Amino acid sequence: MFELKDRDGLARIGVLDARRGGIATPNLAPVIHPLRQDITATQMKAEFGAEVVMTNSYTLWRSESRLLGAERGIHGVLGFEGPIMTDSGAFQSHVYGDIDLTNTDIIGYQRDIGSDFGTVLDVFSEPEHNRTRAQQDLAETLKRTREAAALRGDMPLIGAVQGSLFPDLRAQCAHDLSDIDVAVHAIGGVVPLMESYRFQDLAQVIIGSKRGLRPDRPVHLFGAGHPMVFALAALLGCDLFDSSSYDKYARAGRMMFADGTRHIEELDVLPCDCPVCAAHSVDDLRKDSLLLARHNLHESFREIRTVRQAIKAGEIWELVERRCRSHPALLDALRELRLHSDYLEMFEPASRPGAFFFVGPESVLRPSLQRTRRRLTERYSPPRRDLLVVFPEGKKPYSRHREWEIKAIEGRCNAHMVVKSALGPVPIELDEFYPFSQSLVPEHLGAETVEAAEVFTQQFVRAHGYERGLTWAGPDSFNDLPKADAPPEPPDMDMLRIRAVADMQFGRGAAKALLGGKIELIKSPNTGRVRNVIRDGTHILSMRAHDGMFTLRLDGGRLLHAAFPPPFMRVTVETDTAEFNRQGKNVFAKFVLECDLELSPGDECLVVDEKDQLAAVGRLFMNRDEMLAFERGVAVHVREGAPPPP
Amino acid sequence: MFELKDRDGLARIGVLDARRGGIATPNLAPVIHPLRQDITATQMKAEFGAEVVMTNSYTLWRSESRLLGAERGIHGVLGFEGPIMTDSGAFQSHVYGDIDLTNTDIIGYQRDIGSDFGTVLDVFSEPEHNRTRAQQDLAETLKRTREAAALRGDMPLIGAVQGSLFPDLRAQCAHDLSDIDVAVHAIGGVVPLMESYRFQDLAQVIIGSKRGLRPDRPVHLFGAGHPMVFALAALLGCDLFDSSSYDKYARAGRMMFADGTRHIEELDVLPCDCPVCAAHSVDDLRKDSLLLARHNLHESFREIRTVRQAIKAGEIWELVERRCRSHPALLDALRELRLHSDYLEMFEPASRPGAFFFVGPESVLRPSLQRTRRRLTERYSPPRRDLLVVFPEGKKPYSRHREWEIKAIEGRCNAHMVVKSALGPVPIELDEFYPFSQSLVPEHLGAETVEAAEVFTQQFVRAHGYERGLTWAGPDSFNDLPKADAPPEPPDMDMLRIRAVADMQFGRGAAKALLGGKIELIKSPNTGRVRNVIRDGTHILSMRAHDGMFTLRLDGGRLLHAAFPPPFMRVTVETDTAEFNRQGKNVFAKFVLECDLELSPGDECLVVDEKDQLAAVGRLFMNRDEMLAFERGVAVHVREGAPPPP
Repeated sequence: MFELKDRDGLARIGVLDARRGGIATPNLAPVIHPLRQDITATQMKAEFGAEVVMTNSYTLWRSESRLLGAERGIHGVLGFEGPIMTDSGAFQSHVYGDIDLTNTDIIGYQRDIGSDFGTVLDVFSEPEHNRTRAQQDLAETLKRTREAAALRGDMPLIGAVQGSLFPDLRAQCAHDLSDIDVAVHAIGGVVPLMESYRFQDLAQVIIGSKRGLRPDRPVHLFGAGHPMVFALAALLGCDLFDSSSYDKYARAGRMMFADGTRHIEELDVLPCDCPVCAAHSVDDLRKDSLLLARHNLHESFREIRTVRQAIKAGEIWELVERRCRSHPALLDALRELRLHSDYLEMFEPASRPGAFFFVGPESVLRPSLQRTRRRLTERYSPPRRDLLVVFPEGKKPYSRHREWEIKAIEGRCNAHMVVKSALGPVPIELDEFYPFSQSLVPEHLGAETVEAAEVFTQQFVRAHGYERGLTWAGPDSFNDLPKADAPPEPPDMDMLRIRAVADMQFGRGAAKALLGGKIELIKSPNTGRVRNVIRDGTHILSMRAHDGMFTLRLDGGRLLHAAFPPPFMRVTVETDTAEFNRQGKNVFAKFVLECDLELSPGDECLVVDEKDQLAAVGRLFMNRDEMLAFERGVAVHVREGAPPPP
Repeated sequence: MFELKDRDGLARIGVLDARRGGIATPNLAPVIHPLRQDITATQMKAEFGAEVVMTNSYTLWRSESRLLGAERGIHGVLGFEGPIMTDSGAFQSHVYGDIDLTNTDIIGYQRDIGSDFGTVLDVFSEPEHNRTRAQQDLAETLKRTREAAALRGDMPLIGAVQGSLFPDLRAQCAHDLSDIDVAVHAIGGVVPLMESYRFQDLAQVIIGSKRGLRPDRPVHLFGAGHPMVFALAALLGCDLFDSSSYDKYARAGRMMFADGTRHIEELDVLPCDCPVCAAHSVDDLRKDSLLLARHNLHESFREIRTVRQAIKAGEIWELVERRCRSHPALLDALRELRLHSDYLEMFEPASRPGAFFFVGPESVLRPSLQRTRRRLTERYSPPRRDLLVVFPEGKKPYSRHREWEIKAIEGRCNAHMVVKSALGPVPIELDEFYPFSQSLVPEHLGAETVEAAEVFTQQFVRAHGYERGLTWAGPDSFNDLPKADAPPEPPDMDMLRIRAVADMQFGRGAAKALLGGKIELIKSPNTGRVRNVIRDGTHILSMRAHDGMFTLRLDGGRLLHAAFPPPFMRVTVETDTAEFNRQGKNVFAKFVLECDLELSPGDECLVVDEKDQLAAVGRLFMNRDEMLAFERGVAVHVREGAPPPP
């Protein structure tokens, strides 16, 4: 039903199959009243590009048109042939207390009116519910979801995660839902959080739910309709939003913007050029709430496109860090994320197309950097430990290294050099490794970032047990070092570099496995940088210019495969299908049996069959949990297939 | 020529009179080629709302149509009846070296073709020019500006400030230009800074220039055409922008956004809903650079409107702090601003309509807060100094004070309480004073802000010489205090509050002058907050609910006038005109003779005649330098006029 196309953070660009056409995600399903629409479903599609709408089956059921719904179908009632999601009345139970029909009734009704996605009448778990009550909410929700799955016929279901503010209950509910036959998971009970700007709680609830959900189903954030939360929610893995907010806000004279809300009475000019604002004056908008509603929809869909573009460009973190400046409560949500690095890191791509932009003190806590710093203690080995020179003020880790290097080495010492950069410690031989050289940081980092850089650098120094350390303070820093009798041999920086990159990228010991024998380096005639690594005449590795990482050639893969036992770097596929990978065809998720937990999207990997025979080398698109869950889509882009064993 | 309508930071909403219609500022003059236009001047007005265009008189002079220009006039050549600015070729001299005509020639030519604003052929001061060279640049620029002023006829002149990167030379050049008869000041030589993202240098250059310029003339930032700099430049007092960037970027396939630039080839979807993007696909835009140019113009004018709206709402600082997250080099420019608080504070309104939003660690360094903290040491006097209790973690200074207060007082001690808030120390009786209670700050402030709060609080504590200090750590913090024999009398918080506000707002000693005699407080029946202060039966002060500050009634003004000698709170007007102010009419800038330097826009003031006789009380709209410079517009909004002395 759901296919992954691109990704960044936990955010994903995907396609959800629906009976009446595919729905690109992330996306917004505008909510319309089943019987009275100021903006019809057809207009939603034509004017705003909506690919799916949501309406409330309970509202229709309660109306005089209940039978009309069953007779003409919901598509007939709405006069719309595209995908229609229906809601169940669970939100009405939140607003009005109990409602006058059962889960069985409303599932049957949704099925009968031909809903493309019917929603379980889940129990809305209020934020103030205590643990016991929240447990009851989720138990009842699970019971009703199972009931709905039995009654759904051919109608795909939307099943919500409940559990109030208890992340473990959210995860448990999500986990239990994963075994039930629903098409779309929703995160429910969050509207009160959004209404009261409790965005930190919202982030906790989303992450708690995501931890339990299976990754092959799209996730719908119920009732999320303000564009100011789309980027954050998408970063955390929400694929679908729905809301009637565009209309409710408009009726209250309020215009939605990606950076907040403005009352039309506050405005003298329109800080917008959507088709509505471009064609009307402030006065027009003051008089006509329908114009405001249309503005709100334009702005919402614009933000959806902005989010998609950011995912595509590998800049979702930058977008979120900027958007979270719109309100202090969003900043709190952003700060919350650093407490979930363990989970976020599993989905974080190993590299990305764009530069790493520093947006604020939170930027250096992004999962990609936490990973890099962790690998610097777990995987990296310094070339020497007798003397470490730390270069402070390394705001721009990509600059001036060569110069320092030469100065430091000149006739006196042959130290290992590390730059205390904004992003953390950068051993000099890793200065072209992603994201060090691809980073854009300000000259003035701010006290918080300077302090973080200090802490991260100390962690690195201690992890590697240097005998002696010096901090660079100009060439004179080296005057009290014993002068060498003979000038020390300058290190072979290229060899240091490729050894360090191999260990950082593949795992400790990879350099040793790959770089024995006679090594020849092919360099770019323009930049002098290493491009290809040849071992004993065989091309084993290529170094990518844009991120300073290796792409693994088959012969390199063979060396790693021989040197390390499973599960190291392995993606294990069904032996029957390995044949296709040997021919260079991609690995599809449905044929994957296991995958090394250490691998992240974007990492190089070894594709092996059930007997651990190397079938191919390639690059991960999905992480382990995803490839084990998805029934559809590419798990590994194969670069080179291995001939079958003789 | 130029009239001030609204303000925030150094930013201003104004109207520049031009011969062919007023130009609202801030504004952008799109640059068009005099002879070949993909987008004509008429279209600039019709499609984008441009109120003025700029074209290059030198380009026309050099072309075969030189005589046509003189014959038909520039309005005839462009087929446009609105205001047209002309450039002089100074930028061409930057690009190509010397050009083949003189200042005299090009001023005469601009005059002859009927330019609405002609530009001096100033000497483009390159960023790499040394001090000597920069001095020569500016001397020659001044000479040519004087020459132009003699030749201009009835054509208003644009005269640029030069001086490369030397802020003192910029200020000197600006100061000398102020004596010359030009209509619009430009800041020149900045294009290379913007092209290389040297935004910190740009900020220094703008501030340096602004310090020297007279405030009654609009300031044009030459060549600024990327919407990512508009907010910052406007905050620093730039009123006009011009640029051909929309076209140059478009020809290179680049789309401008307020948060940066995107190459159209990077985009899969359009994160925009301007009329061009709403009506076209990515493919359309890839094929047609004219569409890109139109997008760039729509986005640019949208940002102009966003800036205006932010000025109006009193949120220009928030907008700039958000926009500066678009690129680390803009963050450096933002950090630069705290070094210029002395200057920025002179223009910073005393209060504003909206809330104070925390955007990042830079927010607490805004001039408005620097001013408040300075006043807390210079103007404020603690009600007692024997014991200070500091409440840490005061992230939300507006909450929970009453609760703490009661706990602290209960039967044990009668301390003075101060909250160590994100914004700095908040004495408990000032908790409703702007911006303390109007602030929105996150729960998690970040280490930099926490450290700043600590430093600011220590400065406050030391300035006031408390005998003993305690930090709140729960009610037990007070256990080791000697228990009072009798419970201390609870302080009259309302009286403490109005005394503290009076001193903070008007100056140390104001409370004593105002609040002698019998004081009666009229409170809001709903909130219980003080609304009016009555002294001996006379209404002397009202307290505004939205910012916790006083509006001064005439009888209050009389007390302050009697108690303090000039220049305290005075705006001195020509005696002849004071008559009008006595009748309640506003003070116009042209009649102002002097003004207390301590007064800021938004402050209450005493309007006096040349004999220091009180004529009225009112509220400042302009600061001192502005009211002495402007020939037009309101300097003080008069609230109550004083009857003439008997």
